[in-house]
Amino acid sequence: MSIALDVMGGDLAPKIRLDAAEKAVKEDKISLVLVGDEKIIKTYVDKHKLPSSLIEIVPSTQTVEMGDSPIQVVRQKKDSSMRVCFDLHTSNHVSGLVSAGNSGAMVAHSVLLLKLYPCIERPCFSVFIPKRESQSFLLCDAGANVDCTVKQLVQFALLGSLYLTGLHERKRPKVGLLNIGAEDNKGNVVAKNTFDTLSALETNEFEFIGNLEGKEVFESDVDILLVDGFAGNIFLKSIQGAVKYFYYNFKREVHNGSLIEKASVYLLKNLFKRITNRIDYSNFSGAPVLGVQGNAFVCHGGSNAQAIYNAIKVACWAEQENLSERMADKLSTIEIQKILC
Amino acid sequence: MSIALDVMGGDLAPKIRLDAAEKAVKEDKISLVLVGDEKIIKTYVDKHKLPSSLIEIVPSTQTVEMGDSPIQVVRQKKDSSMRVCFDLHTSNHVSGLVSAGNSGAMVAHSVLLLKLYPCIERPCFSVFIPKRESQSFLLCDAGANVDCTVKQLVQFALLGSLYLTGLHERKRPKVGLLNIGAEDNKGNVVAKNTFDTLSALETNEFEFIGNLEGKEVFESDVDILLVDGFAGNIFLKSIQGAVKYFYYNFKREVHNGSLIEKASVYLLKNLFKRITNRIDYSNFSGAPVLGVQGNAFVCHGGSNAQAIYNAIKVACWAEQENLSERMADKLSTIEIQKILC
Repeated sequence: MSIALDVMGGDLAPKIRLDAAEKAVKEDKISLVLVGDEKIIKTYVDKHKLPSSLIEIVPSTQTVEMGDSPIQVVRQKKDSSMRVCFDLHTSNHVSGLVSAGNSGAMVAHSVLLLKLYPCIERPCFSVFIPKRESQSFLLCDAGANVDCTVKQLVQFALLGSLYLTGLHERKRPKVGLLNIGAEDNKGNVVAKNTFDTLSALETNEFEFIGNLEGKEVFESDVDILLVDGFAGNIFLKSIQGAVKYFYYNFKREVHNGSLIEKASVYLLKNLFKRITNRIDYSNFSGAPVLGVQGNAFVCHGGSNAQAIYNAIKVACWAEQENLSERMADKLSTIEIQKILC
Repeated sequence: MSIALDVMGGDLAPKIRLDAAEKAVKEDKISLVLVGDEKIIKTYVDKHKLPSSLIEIVPSTQTVEMGDSPIQVVRQKKDSSMRVCFDLHTSNHVSGLVSAGNSGAMVAHSVLLLKLYPCIERPCFSVFIPKRESQSFLLCDAGANVDCTVKQLVQFALLGSLYLTGLHERKRPKVGLLNIGAEDNKGNVVAKNTFDTLSALETNEFEFIGNLEGKEVFESDVDILLVDGFAGNIFLKSIQGAVKYFYYNFKREVHNGSLIEKASVYLLKNLFKRITNRIDYSNFSGAPVLGVQGNAFVCHGGSNAQAIYNAIKVACWAEQENLSERMADKLSTIEIQKILC
């Protein structure tokens, strides 16, 4: 089956989206349904000679803007490119969807149209973030759910574990709580109570390794970094900001530096490119909306074509692996159902 | 008057603390009261020939550990080095204090012993963070108050403004709300309501410039970055973690790199030192506990001697400028008192 791609959503739409589509179609023979402004899409498809056997265009007349209210969008923009992607998914015309649009609207559409798994109260975004030794950890929640209860956070730990186990076959992933100190009694009320609940929980699905601070997560052995969507999103964007700021300082120092320093930096161009490839957020793939019955992937609004392309590939993989159904089956059987319901 | 220095608190005590004391005494002729293990302090003072005219040693027999419960510490460790510093301040033996100990205990001691300004509900930590063009912004709250109400956040904006106006003579500082999106309707319930309250507030003390994301704060014109102490502390430590991770990747790439790359990096040693000096968190000075009637400065547990030294200097400056009293006077007169009470 195909993957629906929201061509209109996000800061740099639609060119970046279509570049990603071209790569997925030409390099991986992935079948795509492109949703958005018909004329723009058709012009691109013709110009870049995308094979008609792998491309379907579904027109939509509306676009979800970044400032739109999520609930109003669901009610009022029924022909938005994002909504049409969801409709194609719920009618089984596609097996998954990718959008880099308004993330609140992605949550609202996911919950109202795809529906949550039984017992799951809220969905979460889970983003892979690179860490030492070429490994990565999964940030849950990266921003879907800004006011979390303890129960919801425990559910996110479980959802992340099932996703990771399905994706990477990591056995019993290590869950750490992103907090303001490593000691047991740190954090706000929700973090403290989540710590207590996870410490007392006996489960084979994941291992709780306690609190982690932002300064140590990149060198820790955490697999899933658990935090509410407000602090989680701030974490995600702050590390982006910090790396950008580092580069700014670097450029400034080079600009003011000696000739030898300028020449040395020139010789390090490839080395910096290798680092950037590893840590640049815009290269990361999309985040699944975990907890809903379907394959919806959200990308950062400023994603580049590589990131959208990566998300399309993960959405394909999720279909091939039957991930959503397998997660639902697993959820219905595991011991800690008492936590979930 | 003197500044009291908690020699025992923090991860690297007491050596680092005493190195900072030596620098402050020898370079700036600052008069210090060193509080902690008498034998350790005396040995250091004798060995390093610190002038007795500027040094007083006040022994204490207990130490606040990083995992100690703040309230229990205040009740039970009445001879901790931190507590003795506060007692010296409340009895006017010193004009301020610096500690790199347990930050929760710093808040508890500040509130219970120094007392809050009338109308102020909670204190906040305010940390200077460097940004572009060699400027900096003040993060309020950096971790004193993890569960904030809207009213408390508005109070922090005001406290930060008064501090900044007193310190840098910046007129009407720009206050931005650290949030998960730049649009008006973003964030958790507290962030949304704080946005609405600040947008409606008419005050000459600061200008509210709206929401800011972590990825853009370093290049924004914000003077005060407002956020609850939970997300604020996560922001602070995450940027530290990100920079450390960048350096890790850099070292790894150099290690695996070509001979030319290795040589180029060697030639850039001084350039990297210049950048590190600007962005290394351990170099930052201490954060004042804003909102209390006194001069209490908290440093990060992992601070180096330079950071502690910087904090001692700021504490001295605060005394010379009569900052705490001036802030109290100002608070009692300003128009937005209706917000405060």
